Amino acid sequence: MSDVLEQLSKVLEARKAADPDSSYVASLHARGLNKILEKVGEECTETLIAAKDAERSGKTDEVIYETADLWFHTLVMLSRFGLGPDAILEELGRRFDLSGLEEKAARQK
Amino acid sequence: MSDVLEQLSKVLEARKAADPDSSYVASLHARGLNKILEKVGEECTETLIAAKDAERSGKTDEVIYETADLWFHTLVMLSRFGLGPDAILEELGRRFDLSGLEEKAARQK
Amino acid sequence: MSDVLEQLSKVLEARKAADPDSSYVASLHARGLNKILEKVGEECTETLIAAKDAERSGKTDEVIYETADLWFHTLVMLSRFGLGPDAILEELGRRFDLSGLEEKAARQK
Amino acid sequence: MSDVLEQLSKVLEARKAADPDSSYVASLHARGLNKILEKVGEECTETLIAAKDAERSGKTDEVIYETADLWFHTLVMLSRFGLGPDAILEELGRRFDLSGLEEKAARQK
Repeated sequence: MSDVLEQLSKVLEARKAADPDSSYVASLHARGLNKILEKVGEECTETLIAAKDAERSGKTDEVIYETADLWFHTLVMLSRFGLGPDAILEELGRRFDLSGLEEKAARQK
Repeated sequence: MSDVLEQLSKVLEARKAADPDSSYVASLHARGLNKILEKVGEECTETLIAAKDAERSGKTDEVIYETADLWFHTLVMLSRFGLGPDAILEELGRRFDLSGLEEKAARQK
Repeated sequence: MSDVLEQLSKVLEARKAADPDSSYVASLHARGLNKILEKVGEECTETLIAAKDAERSGKTDEVIYETADLWFHTLVMLSRFGLGPDAILEELGRRFDLSGLEEKAARQK
Repeated sequence: MSDVLEQLSKVLEARKAADPDSSYVASLHARGLNKILEKVGEECTETLIAAKDAERSGKTDEVIYETADLWFHTLVMLSRFGLGPDAILEELGRRFDLSGLEEKAARQK
């Protein structure tokens, strides 16, 4: 499961240089950073709306779908800057001292 | 690296029931879904601004920091609905047929 | 100038019941509140991006254009709830005690 | 009613140069454009959430309150660029040919 982000990152990297007519990701890059950021903002709004609907209905399909869209477009944005999901995961790990947790868990085995 | 999301997910789950005075995550849950969604929207705005600044300066530290904040608060939102990062990664993997890519890569070795 | 919002409000009210194929506003209402809110979020993102570009270039055309789009879609949202711009202007006036300022200005003449 | 935006615009202009410790608007300007844009994004998110809650409850107080906050912070942003609400109203009027409507209405009297 955990390799999905890594694999997706490679796909996104490869598609940066692809034909804009054949790839959605390539078409975003061809249109530039502003277009990519517009999509990030758009998917964030759709995530918020889906979460409010899920609060009412109890159905979370749309929350998953829209959050995946949001993460996806942030990954396109990151690749624009030559960054991948590892930069985000490192930051999260550092912030929550998760490498420490990992080490501690390893020692407890 | 890939275990960071899994570990973070466990931390977030544990903190849902923690004392709101001792944990930021618990304080968000105590204030309710709207507060969590406000933070998601806020971090998305900060990500967009950081990306525009990085376009100009070439410095991506803030992009990484704000995207980590955005992902973090979407994980808090997901945990509110009893969901974890695996739901998002499955959706991304399904969408990009990454399990298929994985299988293909395995056969190529 | 000040009558623009009032006039626009009447146009929006009239178009609520128009044929969705002949009017953009009617098509938004036909697609429902979520579609209207998606547009509000989208125009907000475009306003932020335009402001960051204006900071750099000094050209404010896009800021004006996108802010007008944002205000326009908030007016469509308000009309969805049977509200007009007067509700917003009253709130702003009340908050800044502008009726008081107006009165004071009148007495100073 | 229609003078509220004009009066508010004058207040915002005057407070640009005020002491940041004595005025919220001055404190926003002192913190810079990014802080102002963060507030615009924040109030937009709160407007979306308020609208979803109003859809359910039928109570629109929060929608009015948050939309006023959103408009207010866009006015602070505009004043940052030396612009006022008239620029937005002109754009809206031009777009909907409201001066034409006004003229037509005047002739019908």
